Amino acid sequence: MNPEEFRAAAHQLVDWIADYRTRVPELPVQARVKPGEVAAQLPAAPPAAPEGFDAVLGDLDRVVVPGITQVQHPRYFGWFPSNATLSSVLGDIAASGLGALGITWQSAPALTEVEEVVVEWLRELTGLPASWRGSIQDTASSACHLALLAARERTTDYSGTRGGLQAEQAPLTVYTTEHAHSSISKAVALAGFGMDNLRLVETDPWTRAMSPKALAEAVAADVAAGKRPTAVMAGLGTTGTTAMDPLAEITRIAAEHRMWVHVDAAMAGSALLLPEMRWMIDGVEGVDSLSWNPHKWMGTVIDCALLYVADPDHLVRVMSSNPSYLRSTVDGEVTQYKDWGIPLGRRFRALKLWFQLRLDGVEAIQDRLRRDLDNARWLAEQVEAAPGWRLLAPVALQTVCMRYEPAGITDGDALDAHTLAWVDEVNASGATLITPSLLDGRWSVRVSIGAERTERSDVAAVWEVLRTAAERR
Amino acid sequence: MNPEEFRAAAHQLVDWIADYRTRVPELPVQARVKPGEVAAQLPAAPPAAPEGFDAVLGDLDRVVVPGITQVQHPRYFGWFPSNATLSSVLGDIAASGLGALGITWQSAPALTEVEEVVVEWLRELTGLPASWRGSIQDTASSACHLALLAARERTTDYSGTRGGLQAEQAPLTVYTTEHAHSSISKAVALAGFGMDNLRLVETDPWTRAMSPKALAEAVAADVAAGKRPTAVMAGLGTTGTTAMDPLAEITRIAAEHRMWVHVDAAMAGSALLLPEMRWMIDGVEGVDSLSWNPHKWMGTVIDCALLYVADPDHLVRVMSSNPSYLRSTVDGEVTQYKDWGIPLGRRFRALKLWFQLRLDGVEAIQDRLRRDLDNARWLAEQVEAAPGWRLLAPVALQTVCMRYEPAGITDGDALDAHTLAWVDEVNASGATLITPSLLDGRWSVRVSIGAERTERSDVAAVWEVLRTAAERR
Repeated sequence: MNPEEFRAAAHQLVDWIADYRTRVPELPVQARVKPGEVAAQLPAAPPAAPEGFDAVLGDLDRVVVPGITQVQHPRYFGWFPSNATLSSVLGDIAASGLGALGITWQSAPALTEVEEVVVEWLRELTGLPASWRGSIQDTASSACHLALLAARERTTDYSGTRGGLQAEQAPLTVYTTEHAHSSISKAVALAGFGMDNLRLVETDPWTRAMSPKALAEAVAADVAAGKRPTAVMAGLGTTGTTAMDPLAEITRIAAEHRMWVHVDAAMAGSALLLPEMRWMIDGVEGVDSLSWNPHKWMGTVIDCALLYVADPDHLVRVMSSNPSYLRSTVDGEVTQYKDWGIPLGRRFRALKLWFQLRLDGVEAIQDRLRRDLDNARWLAEQVEAAPGWRLLAPVALQTVCMRYEPAGITDGDALDAHTLAWVDEVNASGATLITPSLLDGRWSVRVSIGAERTERSDVAAVWEVLRTAAERR
Repeated sequence: MNPEEFRAAAHQLVDWIADYRTRVPELPVQARVKPGEVAAQLPAAPPAAPEGFDAVLGDLDRVVVPGITQVQHPRYFGWFPSNATLSSVLGDIAASGLGALGITWQSAPALTEVEEVVVEWLRELTGLPASWRGSIQDTASSACHLALLAARERTTDYSGTRGGLQAEQAPLTVYTTEHAHSSISKAVALAGFGMDNLRLVETDPWTRAMSPKALAEAVAADVAAGKRPTAVMAGLGTTGTTAMDPLAEITRIAAEHRMWVHVDAAMAGSALLLPEMRWMIDGVEGVDSLSWNPHKWMGTVIDCALLYVADPDHLVRVMSSNPSYLRSTVDGEVTQYKDWGIPLGRRFRALKLWFQLRLDGVEAIQDRLRRDLDNARWLAEQVEAAPGWRLLAPVALQTVCMRYEPAGITDGDALDAHTLAWVDEVNASGATLITPSLLDGRWSVRVSIGAERTERSDVAAVWEVLRTAAERR
């Protein structure tokens, strides 16, 4: 396809995108296709000769749009806000169009340096320590994995360069809570620690925050048993209830044992753009690494996660490689992001952050986040005031956890069945999407507020939908 | 930014992309900026209020374009072809515009099912076994890492669910060659094997292919020493010289010891789209996993790597997670790609493959690959016929390795200095980009043919540039 053919097709496509975004509010929130239904609409092989662009564009309407859950919908309250602001989309389009190759600084200096600048902008804007340095990764899952690898290698004095983890005698242990994201336990298994060496530290029954006392006891018990405490994976805004593990106390305990402290702030990190929310990171100066996803609440189109480290040398020692065909005369003077993660080749992801921050401006992003915090507080008040409804966790951010507990249902299993039934009914209706979640062993409902276009009127309308569905059963 | 503001800006942006792609041939191939020069052009903080789109668009010309090496240039012969065909760019634009969220099948069924279909199309088109299943990953580096994790867990009977690699007694060993990509040794360190347990198996001095006899001997020696041979990381088209490790013999040896065989065909995999190149994968039916990057020679805009596995159950057993908030009633009926890799959240990467294959058609892609193979053979003939020039490796694909060895220079170090000097001069001129590379301990030159717009006339012109620069020194 030559540039003129591209020009013609791309004008059609961006009109299609603008039209699609305009009509998202009219679509059912949850995709209604059955397993296999999308695949069945596609041919068994691609064409030998080119198809026209109209056929391909038509398939976006025919096959793709009905086949996705509309996370850009103003009444999407599912897993977490997954905003893809159109300002960031423009940056992503520029990245694709440029087709730059990020393997070393030399292959695309601007790809590296714009990334360095925008992650520094965001470090400053989120109040993280001035000495920290950041990089863009695909997801917080990968960032947690990298943090655990760095922790493992620091504790073993870089065993990877020798006999590996398998040559280590005293077992390495990792600490988190049951409320941590599933990527933490996955990373513990993948990094070779093994699930037997993951400790789920006790949490406060209401805030679900890690108990520092329980952490200290668990670490002491492991030390007494000849194990090596290696890392604490703290959560800031856990997935279930946005619990906040207390960083100041955790880092104090970790420092005594030279443990790595990683903070997973995947969704909650966006809140740090608000100065009044910085209480969340009290104690962060003792942390080794922190990751959060602009591709969630802040609204940079997926995928865009930030990984900040207090000392990038730990990453580079673990992950650098320097084959002859990647060497250049500027090595040593520049940042080589290939040594900060697993992939060698990188997209120009910094452009979508750069475009979003410039085209929207910081204040508009802050205003939107404050709107969402207000909406969550408002919804929590409604839940607390409504007969039969119970708020199940503090509303620290934009997530409201609730359950309708009718007086007539006293059996826990029956209550679970009731909850799942009305949630399923609501989601199947297409009016909204909310996520059922297990909390203290029982099904509850998470209403995760923060889609870019969600206004108070949407929250109020959906609250009525939930009440109606739950209370009439 | 609302859809109408997006519409206006996006029309400007796609015109800018079409214009940029048109003028790429006029730009210097290698970026000329100095370290820090790009960063110095950006302000210390993002704006509080929105900037106009013209300012941002202007910075693409002012800051970004001079700051990237033009890998889409017809005279780019550097690291590897990194084509970003405009047909695939359209698919990537659609993905960004949709802003779909891939975490489970339920969050975007079409994101999963279009991926299943296009990787199946490409499996069939590349002649891989019909029972294999594939997924899209970011890079071959990640794919190699995942393969090593699966191998490690299979050999240890899934130690990750118990005491981890650190609880294993007999050391696990991995086999590759010195010509393997740097991501292999990196993965060996990251997956906890440790560099002491990586064996660089002897290769043929001309083809640089792994010696099966040497592999068998290395494995036997490790078994005798009480170690557990776990994986062979074979290369198909190694980075340096496109060497082809012999899969039939490697898989025979691996089968005796139940070793995992992964094939890294990052760049070379595109050649499998040509039926006449299928000799490369003779023996592939004994392989456990194979990865290649459509984002290289085939031309899907970065990032897009394919990882095929003979039995996905090994990946899923190692990488599945199932927190309550991700469960749905269709679990078990659908593919959950979150369990095939490290990241939970996924972009809709399948769209760029879908668009490229449909808008270009398979035959045009095949024609382009054949053109490049012809061009490489032609260049190799010129090198062999030119006095003082030496072809340093067989030209199995599109990479030609060469050195100019003037009669007057007999000292190896002096020859290295001569080679690096003329290559540096050529690259600094902006006329082309070629990659110096160490081969058998001496600097040589790789001319990697395969940019989308490289025609015979470009290869011929650059060959004249190389001759002139090397021979006049």
